[in-house]
Amino acid sequence: MAAIGAMPEINGLRQKGRRSFVTLSLTILASSQSILIVWSKRAGKYEYSVTTANFLVEALKCALSLAALVRIWRKDGVTDDNRLSTTWDEVKVYPIPAALYLVKNLLQYYIFAYVDAPGYQILKNLNIISTGILYQIILKRKLTEIQWAAFILLCAGCTTAQLNPSSDHVLQAPLQGWVMAIVMALLSGFAGVYTEAIIKKRPSRNINVQNFWLYVFGMIFNAFAIMTQDFDAVMNDGFFHGYSLITVLMILNHALSGIAVSMVMKYADNIVKVYSTSVAMLLTAVVSVFLFGFHLSLAFFLGSTVVSVAIYLHTTGKARR
Amino acid sequence: MAAIGAMPEINGLRQKGRRSFVTLSLTILASSQSILIVWSKRAGKYEYSVTTANFLVEALKCALSLAALVRIWRKDGVTDDNRLSTTWDEVKVYPIPAALYLVKNLLQYYIFAYVDAPGYQILKNLNIISTGILYQIILKRKLTEIQWAAFILLCAGCTTAQLNPSSDHVLQAPLQGWVMAIVMALLSGFAGVYTEAIIKKRPSRNINVQNFWLYVFGMIFNAFAIMTQDFDAVMNDGFFHGYSLITVLMILNHALSGIAVSMVMKYADNIVKVYSTSVAMLLTAVVSVFLFGFHLSLAFFLGSTVVSVAIYLHTTGKARR
Repeated sequence: MAAIGAMPEINGLRQKGRRSFVTLSLTILASSQSILIVWSKRAGKYEYSVTTANFLVEALKCALSLAALVRIWRKDGVTDDNRLSTTWDEVKVYPIPAALYLVKNLLQYYIFAYVDAPGYQILKNLNIISTGILYQIILKRKLTEIQWAAFILLCAGCTTAQLNPSSDHVLQAPLQGWVMAIVMALLSGFAGVYTEAIIKKRPSRNINVQNFWLYVFGMIFNAFAIMTQDFDAVMNDGFFHGYSLITVLMILNHALSGIAVSMVMKYADNIVKVYSTSVAMLLTAVVSVFLFGFHLSLAFFLGSTVVSVAIYLHTTGKARR
Repeated sequence: MAAIGAMPEINGLRQKGRRSFVTLSLTILASSQSILIVWSKRAGKYEYSVTTANFLVEALKCALSLAALVRIWRKDGVTDDNRLSTTWDEVKVYPIPAALYLVKNLLQYYIFAYVDAPGYQILKNLNIISTGILYQIILKRKLTEIQWAAFILLCAGCTTAQLNPSSDHVLQAPLQGWVMAIVMALLSGFAGVYTEAIIKKRPSRNINVQNFWLYVFGMIFNAFAIMTQDFDAVMNDGFFHGYSLITVLMILNHALSGIAVSMVMKYADNIVKVYSTSVAMLLTAVVSVFLFGFHLSLAFFLGSTVVSVAIYLHTTGKARR
């Protein structure tokens, strides 16, 4: 692709098409991900160990990146931008996002002492705001005032769409719960924005090489998680104990979604990622009506309306920049 | 006021100041109105006849307009713009808003066959959208795209702020209920926009004269309502049967709010009126926390956030027109 640099217009169109494609892929993958989770919960409790599944997701992403690279090497030959070998200077920051996610996932166990599960779902929408703030501070790219208004609406709209009779409990959550939720939102926002900074730092570098190294560190961190959390279970029952067809589909889906997230970071940004996963959340609810006979609440319609207006404003706000 | 026409800048500032003053007055009066209603409900059931109270509201508005006119005549003398005498050509359209409100109020009795009271509160927010559409069609003044987005957000935000556990019932309301709600929204939007058209048709005409004639027709229509609905009660128990201090305060408040609405129509427009009464609704909820120990729900916070962003966007959208 890097060779076709002579015609900027075609390149621009190609880039816009690629951006739309990866955004759409992420939206579809993320919504089918939630549907698989609902499906697996209906089919029975999680019987497999989550840490082994996470490890396999990272391993699969590594393998897929490598496969893509092999294809590219055959087609274009090995260049400076697509060679797998790397320098310490390039990869030294790669473990940071994986480490941040690990800390966030550890905190997740503790927050439930202060907040119930539906409350946590509500508080997770703080991620939207933290991503916006960190995007602006760390990547130094400005959102326009209209785009900020849109981002606040996106957060309010997503939360509204998820409202349920027990949502108000979250207002009674102790201060510690709120502080932890804000810290988790900052960690997850920071990890996202940092990944984008890493991937965008060298724009000509092939995304599959960048992904390969990111996922290698993901594998290492998840291997560590297996050792500390599920060592006995894996030793006694085996690595693949409790795996089913749904488990395999979920691993496949998580791997593809993960790659889609990386692609969105490369060709678009964290803001697009947040919009994409928010729309996925709404899509999941609509699809669940048909698949599982769920009912859509008035709050869902109102939240979806607000999210739709937010997307419109984000696009309009960009054009006026 | 019409005499000071020489300095357009001062006039512009004066007009802006007057617009802000009437808008603020309407917001405060409308929110204290709801608080009086809650107070009167807590104090016991309505024991007075609502039609006589409505008649007194119109009569009081008439008297207040006349008092304001007398002051103006003493100061500026009688001119073509502030003389009370009128022509059939000027007032022939004045009964239309009063008639529309009458039809709307009659329909109100029938809609409860299809929709419960909280559901009706939710459906009343359709007024916002109908006012926006009719404002654009009848007054031929364009809202920008951002302002339309803001108006949809205002409707969604107000509805979200009013959500309660039984709100979802409205989604199960039969088609007739929805049709009636839409017809009522159109009638009320049409009455508002038509009043603005009447008041703005002759900008130099003194607002107190215009109000006087509007309220005269209001009195006539309400006298008709007393005759048809409460004739026996008034004859047997007397006109002021069941009146209390709260009743008097409510009549006073309704009269002042009514005049504030007319002023907003004269110096601003229906869009400002809708924003103003929406903010009043939110203010009422906040004040009720302190007065009556009400609790604010998460939905209220989300709705208020969306309404705040809508107000910001409406103002920004205007600047860019």
